[in-house]
Order: sequence, then C-alpha cells, then structure tokens
Amino acid sequence: MDRADKPLALTLGDPAGIGPDITLLAFTARRALAIPPFVLIGDPGVLAERARMMDLAVRIEPIGDTSAAPSVFTEALPVLLVPVAGEVVAGRPSAAAAASVQQSIEHAVALVRDGAASAVVTSPISKAVLARAGFGFPGHTEFLAALAGLDASDAVMMLVGGDLKVVPVTIHIPLKDVMGALTTARIVKTLLISARDVARYFGVTRPRMAVTGLNPHAGEDGTMGCEEIETIVPAIEAARDQGLDVTGPHPADTLFHAEARKAYDVAVAMYHDQALIPVKTLAFDTGVNLTLGLPFVRASPDHGTAFALAGTGKASPRSLIEALRLADTMQRNAGAAP
Amino acid sequence: MDRADKPLALTLGDPAGIGPDITLLAFTARRALAIPPFVLIGDPGVLAERARMMDLAVRIEPIGDTSAAPSVFTEALPVLLVPVAGEVVAGRPSAAAAASVQQSIEHAVALVRDGAASAVVTSPISKAVLARAGFGFPGHTEFLAALAGLDASDAVMMLVGGDLKVVPVTIHIPLKDVMGALTTARIVKTLLISARDVARYFGVTRPRMAVTGLNPHAGEDGTMGCEEIETIVPAIEAARDQGLDVTGPHPADTLFHAEARKAYDVAVAMYHDQALIPVKTLAFDTGVNLTLGLPFVRASPDHGTAFALAGTGKASPRSLIEALRLADTMQRNAGAAP
Repeated sequence: MDRADKPLALTLGDPAGIGPDITLLAFTARRALAIPPFVLIGDPGVLAERARMMDLAVRIEPIGDTSAAPSVFTEALPVLLVPVAGEVVAGRPSAAAAASVQQSIEHAVALVRDGAASAVVTSPISKAVLARAGFGFPGHTEFLAALAGLDASDAVMMLVGGDLKVVPVTIHIPLKDVMGALTTARIVKTLLISARDVARYFGVTRPRMAVTGLNPHAGEDGTMGCEEIETIVPAIEAARDQGLDVTGPHPADTLFHAEARKAYDVAVAMYHDQALIPVKTLAFDTGVNLTLGLPFVRASPDHGTAFALAGTGKASPRSLIEALRLADTMQRNAGAAP
Repeated sequence: MDRADKPLALTLGDPAGIGPDITLLAFTARRALAIPPFVLIGDPGVLAERARMMDLAVRIEPIGDTSAAPSVFTEALPVLLVPVAGEVVAGRPSAAAAASVQQSIEHAVALVRDGAASAVVTSPISKAVLARAGFGFPGHTEFLAALAGLDASDAVMMLVGGDLKVVPVTIHIPLKDVMGALTTARIVKTLLISARDVARYFGVTRPRMAVTGLNPHAGEDGTMGCEEIETIVPAIEAARDQGLDVTGPHPADTLFHAEARKAYDVAVAMYHDQALIPVKTLAFDTGVNLTLGLPFVRASPDHGTAFALAGTGKASPRSLIEALRLADTMQRNAGAAP
C-alpha cells in the first residue's frame, strides 16, 4: 500500500466549533457521496458527546495507527487520540483547548510527512482564541509553512469553488497595507508556486493564469492608480520570461463571470476580498481552501468555526466533504505524476 | 399624457463605440421584449451607417419633438438631432465627436427636466476621449449631478443585476485613496440617498440595507484594520438613528451568495471592486448602472464603449435593454408614489 492509499488526516479544529459536527455528518455520508477514508486526529469523547447532541448514531473507534483506518472506516469513524484539556462546551470556545488544537495540526502533518496519511485536511480554528493562548501564527497557512520548515511567503492560499480557482497574493492584512505588501517579487513568486502546484495537483501542465489589477478597471492606463504599471505588469512579464502562460492585469470585476472563466485555469488576485468575493458568491457552500507550496497536500473547508451552530445540527458539511474529496484527488494526481 | 407616458431619452454615447449598435439591436427587439418607447438623442447619419454595416433593416426617423416618438416607435427609430462633427469610423474614437457626446447628454437631461421625456438612459462614453477634449468630469455620474445643480457627492451610483442591488460608497479612485475618502458622513449620506431612492423607485418603503466592511472579515474586531470600528460602525449607528434599517459591517465575501442576498434589499459596499465583482460575476450581460440622488431617473448599461466590437454585430444589447426597461419601471413607480 503506497501513500496514495493511506487515509486522509483530518484535524478536529476548535472543539467548541462545528469541526466535530461536520466531521460526523461527513462520515455518515461516506457511502452516499464516495468520501475517501479519513482518520480524525482529536478527542473521541468530544465526538461522542457531539453525536449525542445531534442525535447521530455514529460508532467512534480509537485506533493505534493509521494502517487500520481504511478497514475501520467502513463501519466506524477512526480516531487517533489527541486529548482536549478542560471541559468542551459546544459554542463556547475556551483557551484551555488551544494546545490540543495545535497538536492535532502538528500530528496530522507528521503523519503525512511520515507517509502514514495521504494529505492533511483541517477543520476551522479560531484565530482569536488561539492568539489569546499564545499561538504565534495568524492562521493555518503560516503555521503549516513553519511546520514544513518554510517561510510564510512560500505557502500560497488557493480557493476552489466549482470551476473557479483563485489565488490571492496578499491575504489577512488590512486593506490599507495591501499597496505596501504588493511587490513584483511577491507576485512572481506566487505565480511560480501556483503554476507548479496547479500542474502537480490538477494535471494542468501549463496552466493559463489570469492576473487582476489592483485598482478599478485595472487602473485604466494609470488614470486610476499606478500599481498596475509599476508593480503588476513587470511581474507578469517576469513570469512570462520564466515560461508561464500569464495574461493581465485584468479588471477584477469582469474576470469572474461564466464566459470569462473559460479563458483561464487559475486567477491570481491582489487581495483577500478580490479573490474571496467571487468564490463565495458562486460557491458559498462548497468552496475549498488549499495551501499550495507545501511538501504535502492541505485542504480545508472555506468557512469558520461557526460557534453559534455547534451542536445544533444546522452546520453544513458540504464544504468539508468537498475538501476531503479534493485533497484525495490532488494527492492521487501528485502521486501519479512522472 | 403625463410624463410617465413620454418616451425615454436615450443618448448615443461615443459614436465610434457600440452605442449605435446596441441602440439598433434593442430597437429591433422592441416588440419581442416589450421595450418601452425611446427616442435617440444623436446623429441619424451615424445610426444609418451603422445599420448598413450590421446589415440591419431599421428605418430611422428624425422627429421635431418627443411627442411624436411613441407613435413613430412602432414603425421607426425616432431620433432627435444632435449632429456629430467630423467623420465617424466605427471602432476609432475621435476627439472631434466629443462635443456632440456631451450635447446628447445635456439634451436628454433637459428633455426629462422639461417633462418631455420620462427618464434618461445613457450609452457608454470614453472617459479618455472626453478628457482629451477638455470634458471636466470623471464620468456620467458627476456630469449629471452638475447638470442637476448638485454636488458630485449627491449622486449615488447603484448597480443592479438580477435580484442584487449594490451601491459603492467610493467609485473611480485608486484603491490607495479609498481609506482617505471613506468618512462617516459620506457613508451616512450614501445610506440616506439610497434608502430614499430605493423606496421611491422600487416601491420598497423601508429597504433593508446591508453594509460591508472595508477589510478582510470586516476587520475581525480590529485585528485586520480599524476602519470598521472608527468609521463604518458610527455611520451605521447614525443611519439607524435616522430611522433606516441597516445591518453590518458584514464581511464582503459572504454577503453576495444566493442565501445571503435574501436578507437585504440593497448592499452598500466601500469601493468599486467590492460592489462590481458580485454584480458582474452574477449578471455580466444584464447589469444596469443607475444614478440615484438626481431629480430624475438615469440608467445605463453596465459596460463600456467596446470600440473593438463597434460595427461587427457582436455587441450584446442585453444590458441596454435591461436599462431601458428598468428606467421605465422606476419612473412609473416614482410617478405612482403618493
């Protein structure tokens, strides 16, 4: 059995959020929706209690190592133990759980790096809760880069929703800081990592990349901003010099309708909302968040902890299910590559 | 016959762009699509030549005043003459035509203000061409405000696409200038004008308004930007104090999917792409651009001059047709109001 046939390693996320809920719901849909086997890295007690709250009959089976997961998965939800400290109350985040949230991620990464799991899928964490507990990273992406021994700028976020793939060059920073954070070098690096990993994980050998402008109408020849001329165009030219298929800068507002989407494999946007608005407008329930640039596949549902929904049975597992399926497809594509 | 039964006044826009093309195409679809009568304010010679290029059999009838338009409209395209200077070549904009472009707009506004037309519908102009000819306004919106004796800040742009109505608080400025341009007073003014005119023109007495944040995740309690706390929340509170139904600031990326759209009648966004990306992603061919705050209805197709398509027959009249129909509906709603 090679790594491609190992289970996916799924983290629990914040135990007070909807991570346990959507894990249970996805597990119950595994046959109907052909969900690839996964092992949950977390606390079986939290899952059992959440299943009780949601009135779900799910057998939870602690396992010793991941080799048992695929056969267990047909009958029970396999769990590798990472105990959560303190009491877990659905909907009430607690800093006492922060250490286990972090350990779950570390353990999932270690499994994949050791060849015991095929890819990492993460459930939502609360940045605010983790920050209060001293977690030194803005989010998953930066933490995963550090665990892989990389610089944060080596990790590239990609959103996938339906036929749309979008990469934001800058992410979780105030809008006023975007202009300063955008450099030609950073855009080129993002283009190179995106092109390499879209080829590796999606089997598109030389992806067509469409780059947005920063300003309205992509600056309209400098009449509404100069970043296109000074920063973005030079990045596009440098990427082309390295053999990439890149067009732009395109006005962002006309780049995401159905006809426009046919002209590229991946769009590269300059900041958070420019990338996230089209994905979540088109595919709110099914969007997947990927981290490219890592030495392994990482996918995640494209939503937050939704504390208010935890335990209510109202959380939708659709985005997690898409993340599990996409992670499996991606790691198989990577494994099949020459 | 009251004003509501007068024709719409349609400007020609840049004669080298697709304004003439979409005017002719919309006219030919008037019966099939129940398009309300309009009179074109421009040069009949330009229309005749464009009809020849597009191989369209359209009779063009110059008229002396708008009272003849509704009866003429069943058989011929009524035109009120504003001659274009110089030679008009489809696809090749010329500064020589700039004066007539401006006159067409001025004439359309005068007709509506005199009660001889019911509303103004404008075809696309080229800001670059007009600026070279000394036109002192960034675009239609500001020019129309000046013609109505108003300050540019009294005119509010609204985009309508399908069930989505979005108002950007700032529009055609570089992204780096958005932070400085956003003030609490400006947001409040935009909310008040939008609420009043959505009531007046769409018959929604107390519209539910959803306001976006500026930063990713609407700043996430100040961890990713402070404009929400310092500027936007105070504006929302001030608008509520004046009786408006306002929620927010909402993260912009999760405000525009189908389920989210049910919770408001109009979204108010902070800058161009935040408002335009969702509208054009969802309704690229049928989006309509409105100017609220004026003493008359103004609608426009939500696209540019598309010089490369002029005369080819490939331009789509769908957005113009939506603009004509929406302008007619809006002016009838306003006329019917108590």
